[in-house]
Amino acid sequence: MPLALVIDGNDGRTLQDQVFDQVRALILSSRLKSGYPMPGSRLLAEHLGVSRNTVTIAYEKLLSEGYLEIRPNVGTFVARNLPDPVPGQQAAAPLALVHDTVPRADTLLERIAASVFPTQAVEHPAEGKLRVDFWPGRVNQRSFPLTEWRRIVDGKLRHGLHNQIRYGNPQGDEKLRRAIADHLGPARGVACAPDDVVIVGGSQDGLSLIARAIGNEGRAFLHENPCYQGARFLFGHLGFPCHPVPVDRDGLVVEALPEIRNAVLYVTPSHQFPTGVTLSLPRRLRLLEWASRTDSLIIEDDYDGDFRYEGGPLTALRGLDRAGRVLYLGTFSKSMGPGLRLGFIVGSDRSAPALARWKKLMSNGTPWIIQAAMAEFLDSGAFQRHLRRIRAMYRQRRDVLIDAIGQHFPGSEILGRRGGMHLAWRLPETGCARRLQQLALTQGIGIYTVEDGGACLSAHGDRHGDLLMMGYAATEEDVIARAIGIMARLDGRG
Amino acid sequence: MPLALVIDGNDGRTLQDQVFDQVRALILSSRLKSGYPMPGSRLLAEHLGVSRNTVTIAYEKLLSEGYLEIRPNVGTFVARNLPDPVPGQQAAAPLALVHDTVPRADTLLERIAASVFPTQAVEHPAEGKLRVDFWPGRVNQRSFPLTEWRRIVDGKLRHGLHNQIRYGNPQGDEKLRRAIADHLGPARGVACAPDDVVIVGGSQDGLSLIARAIGNEGRAFLHENPCYQGARFLFGHLGFPCHPVPVDRDGLVVEALPEIRNAVLYVTPSHQFPTGVTLSLPRRLRLLEWASRTDSLIIEDDYDGDFRYEGGPLTALRGLDRAGRVLYLGTFSKSMGPGLRLGFIVGSDRSAPALARWKKLMSNGTPWIIQAAMAEFLDSGAFQRHLRRIRAMYRQRRDVLIDAIGQHFPGSEILGRRGGMHLAWRLPETGCARRLQQLALTQGIGIYTVEDGGACLSAHGDRHGDLLMMGYAATEEDVIARAIGIMARLDGRG
Repeated sequence: MPLALVIDGNDGRTLQDQVFDQVRALILSSRLKSGYPMPGSRLLAEHLGVSRNTVTIAYEKLLSEGYLEIRPNVGTFVARNLPDPVPGQQAAAPLALVHDTVPRADTLLERIAASVFPTQAVEHPAEGKLRVDFWPGRVNQRSFPLTEWRRIVDGKLRHGLHNQIRYGNPQGDEKLRRAIADHLGPARGVACAPDDVVIVGGSQDGLSLIARAIGNEGRAFLHENPCYQGARFLFGHLGFPCHPVPVDRDGLVVEALPEIRNAVLYVTPSHQFPTGVTLSLPRRLRLLEWASRTDSLIIEDDYDGDFRYEGGPLTALRGLDRAGRVLYLGTFSKSMGPGLRLGFIVGSDRSAPALARWKKLMSNGTPWIIQAAMAEFLDSGAFQRHLRRIRAMYRQRRDVLIDAIGQHFPGSEILGRRGGMHLAWRLPETGCARRLQQLALTQGIGIYTVEDGGACLSAHGDRHGDLLMMGYAATEEDVIARAIGIMARLDGRG
Repeated sequence: MPLALVIDGNDGRTLQDQVFDQVRALILSSRLKSGYPMPGSRLLAEHLGVSRNTVTIAYEKLLSEGYLEIRPNVGTFVARNLPDPVPGQQAAAPLALVHDTVPRADTLLERIAASVFPTQAVEHPAEGKLRVDFWPGRVNQRSFPLTEWRRIVDGKLRHGLHNQIRYGNPQGDEKLRRAIADHLGPARGVACAPDDVVIVGGSQDGLSLIARAIGNEGRAFLHENPCYQGARFLFGHLGFPCHPVPVDRDGLVVEALPEIRNAVLYVTPSHQFPTGVTLSLPRRLRLLEWASRTDSLIIEDDYDGDFRYEGGPLTALRGLDRAGRVLYLGTFSKSMGPGLRLGFIVGSDRSAPALARWKKLMSNGTPWIIQAAMAEFLDSGAFQRHLRRIRAMYRQRRDVLIDAIGQHFPGSEILGRRGGMHLAWRLPETGCARRLQQLALTQGIGIYTVEDGGACLSAHGDRHGDLLMMGYAATEEDVIARAIGIMARLDGRG
């Protein structure tokens, strides 16, 4: 029954007038359009709980005034040529009470609509139109263990449906939290219990949750320079005063951290975004000292820590932290795909339940089926097998990329080769990165300066603007090698 | 006067903040215990030598944050269920990982961990332990079309995996937005385009998104009284000054709305939560006039609008709104199950993209597989078939419940019978609702006063505290009839 009419016994008008007025109002406001087939009078009467005669009288009046027309042997329709509304009549129709004349500029909705701000670039705008795309963080599709994943998802649906018809724990599915805690111990040196973990809808949701829990009372947000856009834009737009802190070959320059009390520091120690460098152990320890000294909070974003090719896994800051200063942020966007929207925060048994209360207040938690399937994927060992497979594949692609750059662009510098899904490439000549990016694009090859590749670069005077970000995980080895060769020829390197 | 409060004129805080802070501290330190009767505001004001208004404001804030509760016709008490975590434990609990020598009290993480606030009750705490549970909003599991859903989910995984390895549109899957727009026109009188729709992770995520987009600059949040906890607690805890507006048998008392400019009004017109009453058409129109006059924004939460048994579907406020004042909030939590975490906002072609930008900044959008499966479920007609089936089932259960109440508790009043998944029941005798709730619980039957059933009741002087919320959707007819009979015998009605 498509007609949204309401009959009100306490309305002063007769029932037929209520039907008439409302149908006419729907027609005049174009919500019932010319040619729309009206329901039969019997059906509408039943539906509204009024006598059929009431509807018949209203229909007759609508017919006589030209709002409806009958097509013999077919039915009653909204008229093709609608009458011009008589001015006085229109004012009387209920909907005309509602103001087309009202100025709209100052309303809250206008304010919302007018709010324009930068958001993080998580995909290249030309994605899909490129022949080869080195966008950082692109995931390889073909290596996904689809058969196993389908089997697990279907099994959960078949046997766990009672979980779909209820609200889950806003902190996250307990099996998934346990599986994550089990995974993080050996993989990242993070000793944590399931109760320390909060499931979120990806890293960005985790950052948003932490920002809500902190509240904004003029607290300083310190970030690496250059920095992942999603963190910088979020905290910046929420009104946190932002302070960039430089990054060099050993990661965040800890000595340059300001002595601000109760600050929030966002940092990517495993594989700095975008430069790929790793925060050295001495700096990690000094960083934790700084946090204790200033009573500050560290957000450790380990966005691609699952991929490590050299030097063994580093102990995460959260694993070194003895004073409870670190919130560790993990994601399945790189290992499983960002379409999953699944990540986690590791806090303490005190901060995690508080974050979970905020999670409840903000969104009542995370979808069940995705959590349940991921828990089984981890528990069954399928995730580890999947990681081993793609680690080996990504490593080979990295090696081919480094070799090709060395061969075709001798004198280049490579940063961030030890892990992750992208590296940072500095050309032998200064100031040529953007030009090469433009040249490559003419042949459908996407390479990206840090600013075009999802990073913020706040201050001048260093050479980060000269870096090219090269995501290699989603591109086959021969394609990588050919693309670098093509770029060399475009660049006149023969 | 047992309250050892000190009002200090030289304290930087306002007088009401001093009262609030000190009473809260007494509660948190267990010096004021649950159930303690608070002195009347006039008495306390006299005692402290402040105006009565000062005390009233402090009490309101304590009520809204869950430290105090009102028992209608009795008085104000320290809440029985204090917001987590349990005070007392809080200060003492040591953290295993915590370095003993590091002072922790002032850190941001401590601040997060110590933040105590009430969150919405979306499930009965004793769920699963009850023989019969009339918790409002419970969904019937057995009626879910599992075979069809599994087939659709698996098909999407098999053929659409490329969507899992990429970020989707933060506004939501376009097919899903189109399917929702197609559904809402006929079902709710809402004419909208796919571009007006933003996909969110359920109603609560939608509210949170809207709150973020509005920002908080002391803007007034107006809400029905009684009101859905999730909305009241969210906006209250974000610092919006909250103003309750009374509800009677025709819904929100529009005449009682304050003439505050640029306010935000949260309203449930289809089936008011918790009373179940429907906002009359004249009031809908006057409400829109009010919004235009005051440049205010209306959030229309249509949480169970898919279920209508009498009187035809009402045109949603968003369908009547010609001035772009309404954001319509819809959810699949009732029709498909809250474990799906899927809902939507219908704004305009201007507000929706702005909300989508916020959605991106907050969480990079909604999981792909759930959106893709729901889109096909809608497009294939399976959703309509499912709705028809459960509507008929819920209607029969409602009828049995109304009959049983009429038979065993003659003289009762029933509100909210025309739609939804619960109705509100007023016993023939005043002030007996809580007693019957306790009696029923002894036999494993869960019935709920509005305050225990997920609603906030802010002010005195009306009879809403006497209503019992009866969710009938998930309980079979014979079980409903038997449970009402048992309660009648427990209550000495033979």
